[in-house]
Amino acid sequence: MAKLVLIRHGQSEWNALNLFNGWVDTKLSDKGIAQAKEAGELLATEGIQFDQAYTSVLTRAITTLHLALEEAGQLFIPEAKSWRLNERHYGALQGQNKAEAAEKWGDEQVHIWRRSYDVLPPLLDSYEEAVEVQGKSYPAFDRRYADVPEGELPLGENLKITLERVLPFWESDIAPQLKAGKNVVIAAHGNSLRALAKHLEHISDDDILNLEIANGQPLVYDLDDSLEVISKKTLSK
Amino acid sequence: MAKLVLIRHGQSEWNALNLFNGWVDTKLSDKGIAQAKEAGELLATEGIQFDQAYTSVLTRAITTLHLALEEAGQLFIPEAKSWRLNERHYGALQGQNKAEAAEKWGDEQVHIWRRSYDVLPPLLDSYEEAVEVQGKSYPAFDRRYADVPEGELPLGENLKITLERVLPFWESDIAPQLKAGKNVVIAAHGNSLRALAKHLEHISDDDILNLEIANGQPLVYDLDDSLEVISKKTLSK
Repeated sequence: MAKLVLIRHGQSEWNALNLFNGWVDTKLSDKGIAQAKEAGELLATEGIQFDQAYTSVLTRAITTLHLALEEAGQLFIPEAKSWRLNERHYGALQGQNKAEAAEKWGDEQVHIWRRSYDVLPPLLDSYEEAVEVQGKSYPAFDRRYADVPEGELPLGENLKITLERVLPFWESDIAPQLKAGKNVVIAAHGNSLRALAKHLEHISDDDILNLEIANGQPLVYDLDDSLEVISKKTLSK
Repeated sequence: MAKLVLIRHGQSEWNALNLFNGWVDTKLSDKGIAQAKEAGELLATEGIQFDQAYTSVLTRAITTLHLALEEAGQLFIPEAKSWRLNERHYGALQGQNKAEAAEKWGDEQVHIWRRSYDVLPPLLDSYEEAVEVQGKSYPAFDRRYADVPEGELPLGENLKITLERVLPFWESDIAPQLKAGKNVVIAAHGNSLRALAKHLEHISDDDILNLEIANGQPLVYDLDDSLEVISKKTLSK
C-alpha cells in the first residue's frame, strides 16, 4: 500500500487576472504562495512521509511543490519534473481574458472549450508564435521542451489529449514508485491532475469535467498494490 | 567546453547566531533569502543557460538553489540532490556558539578545528544523539540518510574527509554532464564547495583553507573537455 497526494498549484498571476494560462509560464500570486504554504501545513499535520516528488516544468507548479515541501519539513526528498505533467495546452486561447473570450466567441462556445472532454480549443498557428498579454510577451515554447519527442509538442489540447500525454509518464515513472510502496506527491495543474484522477478512479468522459480540485488542497489517495483506490480524502482547513 | 557555477547558500539562521551548523538542517535567514535571490539576478545578467542543477539534502542549500533559479527564470531545469554535497559534518561542535567554543576549548584549538585540512572535530557519540540548541532539538541523522552506504555516515568530518565523500558524486554524476558540454549549477556549502574547488583548481592541502566563497556570489568556471579550468570569475554587485 502507498499514498499518493495530488496538489493543484496555488493561484497564479494569470488566474488572478482571469486569463487562460495553459503552458504560459506565470508565477504564483501572493494568494497562491499562501495556498501553497497552507498545503504544506496540511501535509505536516497529516504526517505523511514522502519518498518522491513530481512536478511539471511550469514555475507555478514547481514553486507550489517547493513551498509545500519546505513547510512540511521534507524539502530534501528527490524531485523529478516532466512536461507531461504540464497544464492542458489552451492553444490560441492562452493569454485571452475569459470574459472577453466569451464576448468574442459566445458563452456556449467558450463553455464547450473549457468543459468538453474531446473538443479542441483554437490551435496556435506555430511553435514560434509568442503569447502577448498585459504588455508582456511569452514564448509559445522554449528550450525546456527540447526533449519532447517529435510530433508530440502540442499547439492546443483537450482533456483527452492531456490524459494521453500524462499517462506515459505515470506508467514509466510514477506508478513503479507507488507499486514499490513509496509515498508520492505530485504538484501540478487543474487538468493534468484531473487526467490522473480520471485514470485512477475510472471516471467517465462525461463525469470527469465535474471534478474540481481546489488550489492548494491536497487530495490524498490510499492505493493498493495494483494501484486501485482504497480511500480518498481532501485536506483543507 | 562547459560552464560550472558554484553557489554557496545564503546566510542561515545559525550562521546569523554564530553557531556551528554542519549537517543540522537550518533555514535561510531573511538576509540569506536576499542573498540567494541576488545570486539569481547575477546569473540572469550573466546570461548562462543551465542544463542541470545539483544541491545537497540540506534546506538552506536547496532553498538557495530554488530562489536563484526562479530569479534567473530557469526553475524548470532538472535538479538532483545528494548528501555528498552536504556541508562538512562538524561533529559535537554542531549547535555550539563559535565564541563560546573558543572560551571552552581555547582560540587556538577552535582555529585548528576550523582551519586545518585533516584534524577532526570532537565527534558525536552516536547517530542517535540529537543536537540541542536555542531551545530546539535536531536529530543527528534522519531518514534522508537512509541510502548512505554502510560505514559512510560520519560522526564528524575534516575537509579531507569531506572531499573524499564529495568526489564519488562528482565523478559519477556531475563530471559526465560537464564532459557532455552541459552547463551545471551547484548550490551547496562553504566546505563542500571548497572541496570541489580544491579538486578542480589543484589547490594544495595548506592553501585550500584560505579560499573563501562568499554567500550568494556565484563562482563561474569555464572548463575544457578534460574539466581543466580555462577561466574563473566571481559574480557580485
